[in-house]
Amino acid sequence: MSRVMNFNAGPAALPLPALERARDEMLDFAGSGMSVMEHSHRGKEYEAVHDEAIALLRSLLGVPDDYEVLFVQGGASQLFAQIPMNLVQKGGSADYVVTGAWSEKALSEAKAATAMLGGGVRVACSTGTGDGKEKSYVRCPLPAEVKVDPQAAYLHLTSNETIHGVEFEVDPARPFPGAGPVPLVVDMSSDFLWRKLDVRRFGLLYAGAQKNIGPSGVVVVIVSKALVEKGRKDIPKIFQLRTPAENKSLYNTPPTFGIYMVRNVLAWLQGLGGLGRMEELNRQKARRLYGAIDKSAGTYRCPVEKESRSLMNVVFRLPTEADEERFVKEARQKGMVGLKGHRSVGGIRASTYNAVQPEWVEALAGFMEEFARRG
Amino acid sequence: MSRVMNFNAGPAALPLPALERARDEMLDFAGSGMSVMEHSHRGKEYEAVHDEAIALLRSLLGVPDDYEVLFVQGGASQLFAQIPMNLVQKGGSADYVVTGAWSEKALSEAKAATAMLGGGVRVACSTGTGDGKEKSYVRCPLPAEVKVDPQAAYLHLTSNETIHGVEFEVDPARPFPGAGPVPLVVDMSSDFLWRKLDVRRFGLLYAGAQKNIGPSGVVVVIVSKALVEKGRKDIPKIFQLRTPAENKSLYNTPPTFGIYMVRNVLAWLQGLGGLGRMEELNRQKARRLYGAIDKSAGTYRCPVEKESRSLMNVVFRLPTEADEERFVKEARQKGMVGLKGHRSVGGIRASTYNAVQPEWVEALAGFMEEFARRG
Repeated sequence: MSRVMNFNAGPAALPLPALERARDEMLDFAGSGMSVMEHSHRGKEYEAVHDEAIALLRSLLGVPDDYEVLFVQGGASQLFAQIPMNLVQKGGSADYVVTGAWSEKALSEAKAATAMLGGGVRVACSTGTGDGKEKSYVRCPLPAEVKVDPQAAYLHLTSNETIHGVEFEVDPARPFPGAGPVPLVVDMSSDFLWRKLDVRRFGLLYAGAQKNIGPSGVVVVIVSKALVEKGRKDIPKIFQLRTPAENKSLYNTPPTFGIYMVRNVLAWLQGLGGLGRMEELNRQKARRLYGAIDKSAGTYRCPVEKESRSLMNVVFRLPTEADEERFVKEARQKGMVGLKGHRSVGGIRASTYNAVQPEWVEALAGFMEEFARRG
Repeated sequence: MSRVMNFNAGPAALPLPALERARDEMLDFAGSGMSVMEHSHRGKEYEAVHDEAIALLRSLLGVPDDYEVLFVQGGASQLFAQIPMNLVQKGGSADYVVTGAWSEKALSEAKAATAMLGGGVRVACSTGTGDGKEKSYVRCPLPAEVKVDPQAAYLHLTSNETIHGVEFEVDPARPFPGAGPVPLVVDMSSDFLWRKLDVRRFGLLYAGAQKNIGPSGVVVVIVSKALVEKGRKDIPKIFQLRTPAENKSLYNTPPTFGIYMVRNVLAWLQGLGGLGRMEELNRQKARRLYGAIDKSAGTYRCPVEKESRSLMNVVFRLPTEADEERFVKEARQKGMVGLKGHRSVGGIRASTYNAVQPEWVEALAGFMEEFARRG
C-alpha cells in the first residue's frame, strides 16, 4: 500500500494518524466490543467522543463562553438557507459580499429563504466581472467597497472561495470588512481552523468539515448565544439553531462517525502544536507554491490578485489547456493527485489544507520547476 | 477483541463483514492510495460506490423506473419538515396517522412547516390513549379507523415505532391503511429493508440509515417521479426533492463515507440472499423472543397488542423496575448490550434489526428463560 499525495479540493486529505486510529478501532471502539458507529448517540462511550470534539474546538479556537459550538447536517449548502431562515425577521434583510461561486450560491439560497419568510437580501459588494453565468472573480474587496446597510440582520461573506482561489485576510490589505454593529456571518468551510482567529469578531461562523477537519456530512457552527436567542421560532424546530444549542447537538441522531473523525483530526492538530504551528506550516506551503508560480517566467500564471491569493487553494494556469492536461497527467504519474481545476474555471488547483504535508508541497513545487524548465 | 451482542435501538449493530471491509480499505480504497473519505465526490472512484449503493437499493427492493432513489442528510427528523415543505401546497393540507412518539414528532414538525408556507395538517387517526405529554401507544389502527381526507396532499404514517414497539403490516390484521388516490408517505426509518415490499403502493418512503442499513447521517428517500415534479419551487433549492433527483444526490457534497457504509451493508444483504431470506430470519428472531415472553407465565409482559407487535423492536416489562435493572445488568455480564428501554417508557427493548444475528437472539431468549426460572 502506498499513499498518494492528495491535493483534492474537498473531500480532501485527512491526517494519516486520524485514519489509522479509525482503522484500528473499527471493530472495537474503546474496548466496548463494537464500532463507534454501532453505539447509541445517547450512550456514555459516544458522548465522550462528542464532548471531546466540542472541547477541542473550544480550546483550539479559544471560543468564548457566550458562543455555542454546534454540529449540524446538510453541508454548508444547507446553512445557506438555514441561516437566513433563522436570522432574517419578517420585513428584514441581510447583506451579502460576493467574491466567487460559493458566495453566489449563498446569496441565491438566502433569496429563496427570505422570500419564503417575508424578508429580503441585498448585495453589499460584488467583485465579479464579466457577464453571464460564469463571472470572473480575482480578488477580495477593500473594506471601503463594502456598503453595509446598518439595519441588516447580518453581513455574510465567504472567507475563502475554493473554486476561484480568493481568500480574505491572508494579506493585511484585504481584511474582513468591518460592519459596525451588524454581525459578521462567515462561511469558513474551506479555510476553517488553519490559523488563530478572534471569534468575538464574528456573529456566526460555519464550516463543512470536509476540507480541513473531517469527512463530509458534518458542519460546525460557532455562533454567539445572542444571535441564537434572536432566531425565529416560526420555522420547523429542526432548522432552528436553538435546537442543537439547547440539546448539545443531540436533538436527533448526529452523524456519529463523522464527528468521531472530526475528533480524531482535532486531536492530531492539537498534538501538532495547535493553530499557531498550523498557520506557520500553511504559510510556508503557500509561499513555496506561489513562489514557484511567480518565478516561472510565465509558464505558470495565477489569475488572483496578490493580496487576495488563497492559502488553501492555489489556482494557476499554464500557457495552453494541452499543457495543463500534460501537467496533471505527469503529476499523477509521480503520485500527486487532485490537481485539476474546478470544471467551471479550468486550469490547475492545488489545495493545501491542513493535512496536506509540507513534503507533498515540496514535491509538487519541485515538479513544477522541473516541468517549467523542460518547457 | 471480542464483539458484543448489540441490541441497540439505533445507531445499531452493523454486519461484521461491512465493518471489516471498511477497516481493510481505510487507508487505501480500491488501490487509490487514499481513504474513500479523502476522495472527491465527483471522482470516478467514489462515484462507483455511490452508483452501486443506488443500484443495490433498486435491485433489492425492485424499485420501479418511475421512482427516484435519493440520499439526503439531516436524519428522518429533517424529512419531517422537508416533506410537507415540498408536498403541501399553499392552502393545502396533509393527513397524519399517529401511532407513537415518532409520528407525534412528524406531525408536530409538519404543523410548523405548513404554517410557515400557508398550509395545514390533520390527524386522520391517533391510537394514543391517556392524557398529557406521554401518551400510551400499544397498537396500529384498523384500516377503517383511518379517516382520510380525499383532498389531502398525502397520508403520512410511521411504519414502525421504535420506542413503543408498534409496527404496521407484520400481521395481516394490521395492514397499511388504504388511502385511495391519496399518496401514502411512510417513515420507514426503523423497519426499512427487512422484507420485500411493493414500492408502487407508496408515494414516498424515507428511512434514516442508522437502524438497518448503515451509520447515522444518511437518509434514503424513495419517491415517485410524479410527486417530485409536483413539489413546491418556492422553497430553498437545498430542500426541494427535485434537487437530489436532478443531480443524482450529488448537488452538494454527500456524506460519502456514510453512503460507502450503506453500500457495504447492502452488498452483505445481497450476498445473504436478499430480502426474502432476510424476512425469514427476522420473523424467526421475533418469534423466538415473543415466544419467550408469552411462555414466561407472567415474568415478561409485552404491552403491545399481538397484531401490532414490532419485529424490529421487541419491548417488554418485568414485574418491577428492580427486576428490569437486574435483567439488564445480568444480560450485560453475558455480553448482551443495548437492552434498556427508551427513557420515556422504561422497561426492556431488544432491537432485532437485520444485522442482529440469530445466535444473539437465541442467547437472549435462553437467558430470558433461565432468568424467569430463577424468578
